[in-house]
Amino acid sequence: MGILTLLTDFGTHDIYVGVMKGAIAQINPTLTLIDLTHDIPPQDLAAARFQLLTAVPYFPAGTVHLAVVDPGVGGSRRAIALQTPFGYLVGPDNGIWSGVLEAANTPVLSAVELNNPAYWRVARPSPTFHGRDLFAPVAAHLASGVPLTQLGTAIDPASLVILPLPIVQRIGATIHGCIQSIDHFGNLITNISGNTLPCDSWQIEIGRRAIAGHQTYADQPPGTLLALIGSHGFVEIAITCGNAQNQLAVTVGTPVKLGPAASSS
Amino acid sequence: MGILTLLTDFGTHDIYVGVMKGAIAQINPTLTLIDLTHDIPPQDLAAARFQLLTAVPYFPAGTVHLAVVDPGVGGSRRAIALQTPFGYLVGPDNGIWSGVLEAANTPVLSAVELNNPAYWRVARPSPTFHGRDLFAPVAAHLASGVPLTQLGTAIDPASLVILPLPIVQRIGATIHGCIQSIDHFGNLITNISGNTLPCDSWQIEIGRRAIAGHQTYADQPPGTLLALIGSHGFVEIAITCGNAQNQLAVTVGTPVKLGPAASSS
Amino acid sequence: MGILTLLTDFGTHDIYVGVMKGAIAQINPTLTLIDLTHDIPPQDLAAARFQLLTAVPYFPAGTVHLAVVDPGVGGSRRAIALQTPFGYLVGPDNGIWSGVLEAANTPVLSAVELNNPAYWRVARPSPTFHGRDLFAPVAAHLASGVPLTQLGTAIDPASLVILPLPIVQRIGATIHGCIQSIDHFGNLITNISGNTLPCDSWQIEIGRRAIAGHQTYADQPPGTLLALIGSHGFVEIAITCGNAQNQLAVTVGTPVKLGPAASSS
Repeated sequence: MGILTLLTDFGTHDIYVGVMKGAIAQINPTLTLIDLTHDIPPQDLAAARFQLLTAVPYFPAGTVHLAVVDPGVGGSRRAIALQTPFGYLVGPDNGIWSGVLEAANTPVLSAVELNNPAYWRVARPSPTFHGRDLFAPVAAHLASGVPLTQLGTAIDPASLVILPLPIVQRIGATIHGCIQSIDHFGNLITNISGNTLPCDSWQIEIGRRAIAGHQTYADQPPGTLLALIGSHGFVEIAITCGNAQNQLAVTVGTPVKLGPAASSS
Repeated sequence: MGILTLLTDFGTHDIYVGVMKGAIAQINPTLTLIDLTHDIPPQDLAAARFQLLTAVPYFPAGTVHLAVVDPGVGGSRRAIALQTPFGYLVGPDNGIWSGVLEAANTPVLSAVELNNPAYWRVARPSPTFHGRDLFAPVAAHLASGVPLTQLGTAIDPASLVILPLPIVQRIGATIHGCIQSIDHFGNLITNISGNTLPCDSWQIEIGRRAIAGHQTYADQPPGTLLALIGSHGFVEIAITCGNAQNQLAVTVGTPVKLGPAASSS
Repeated sequence: MGILTLLTDFGTHDIYVGVMKGAIAQINPTLTLIDLTHDIPPQDLAAARFQLLTAVPYFPAGTVHLAVVDPGVGGSRRAIALQTPFGYLVGPDNGIWSGVLEAANTPVLSAVELNNPAYWRVARPSPTFHGRDLFAPVAAHLASGVPLTQLGTAIDPASLVILPLPIVQRIGATIHGCIQSIDHFGNLITNISGNTLPCDSWQIEIGRRAIAGHQTYADQPPGTLLALIGSHGFVEIAITCGNAQNQLAVTVGTPVKLGPAASSS
């Protein structure tokens, strides 16, 4: 029973995602298809990198993950598939997998360039829609049991394009990071791992505010700003039953500083 | 062939829904997953209650319905699963099922608190994401045939948290209610059941307007305000090929009065 | 393994699409359901016609395509199912299939009016939701192997309602057309087929701009206006890594002229 996930920046107003699933169904209509999201902002590789990092570890090991955020479609960027302990990763070689590979420290067991047209939908893919004509068919074949090595030429994992992660720096007892993602609830997700907290009693500074660390939203009454380790493992800033983005008016990239709680707090 | 539906307030911009489906696929990738909606406004239990009420009766009897709108996640609210003639209802004990249980008058055949960690994804669920770590795994096991009674301790159905429905009052020949939901088309759905209409020739008042009752949108030319019994069984106010919410500028909660049609209309 | 696609104007904020899938699961929970889109603007038959035209050809031949954009629901418009080489088309007889039938030049092999209530969910469908009570059940039966001829009375394909396509005119070496759709990326999709280009070196005029034809987005640096043949086969105007709709402020219907490239460009 093959599982294939899909993540794109195609949105859901058009039939682009549906058409990729049609191309998949042409090859194997029994695959289990799971949408991660199709609402990555257009061409936003950093957003895709974050979402993939927080999704891929929760799937069965043999899953095929297909991600198409592809500003270089039709140009010279490579199409690739990677074998990892988390499953197979299929998409353009533009750094989209950097979160899974670097932040989650995932080894690449095998890597190929997808240059075998026998597994494409057509011998000459549309220069603007490799998702439909190349990536989706290849992913469907992979999820149906075709060996990775048949899909193209082996490449050196060290040659993969990397999209560097936003930098985290520890200076004394303080960790300097930034907001790397803002979710649907307006929760501000930093790039500081919950595993690196300096002590049990901590706070995070954003702008001129210092916000105390807690365990969960329900620790505070509705409307209260708080910080906690989110379900993705990163420190996040939230408002219980509220929207922290709306109240703080910050954006992805805004710097934060995390350190021991001030004794007065 | 197990069927499992999902309703959340997670939106579709993030991978939260996809990750719940990953947790489900870890347990049983052959389940049929059907999304009800993930666009419940954040923490809006009343909206979730209405949408579940209008969806659950249309599924096969053995279906597992999973609903996660959970402002109290990580706090002291219970996690529950209920057996009913409509299937199994899995989610937080915060009143989200009140519509199904009260308005649809559905008996609870059996109820358990989900306190058996053998059926969770991990022994210590994230305090902010029980959807992924507790509810989705439990729902997947239930849809795969695990008996309800294995999932936790039996509880008294009378102890369930109830979210009271908006009140409908009959005074003489007039029924007083309110707008309980506004759909994608701008149709204004009241809480007055189509079964309770006083006569065949009726009208509904909202603000200073009286709107005549009809059978269907196509009874009136495009652009006309009309009232009818909607597909959910409630009286609704609509505009044929138009958007009643935009034209009337009302909100959920706006009062309405239904009675016999004025003879002059 | 039956495949059933769904396209509606129901949006995803309500449970209308989920409920249609519930009605389908009542009949056959093993069908593979694929959403094309549910974000057709309310009652916009022209948008639905375009999206179906660009989706249907990419699915396996036996697929059942269900489309419900239905401003005449409950009125006198017919409910129909058509057999074509692309599979079965199920929906209201209001011109929604005109793109598939005319632009793709698809023959109708057989056509029926869906007037056999044995295949409906209930004998008296809701006058406002034939999607749930009539179309989805019929489509599920068809995808499960019920012959088309059992679903109702045969009708003459020449009697189907046609929604005329926007006109393309060739005057000398110039092709006059219009924008027929604008996608999620802001790409402006004309109604001029890529098969009809007069020469290899061409340009398209919109308003006072002349935009040169290229092969793919990556042919130009980010931020550049260009024209190309899109993945749907139509000439489109785009901005590499940008949004042409936002920059040009045009709408569906805006006229365009395509001809040989000016020698000065």
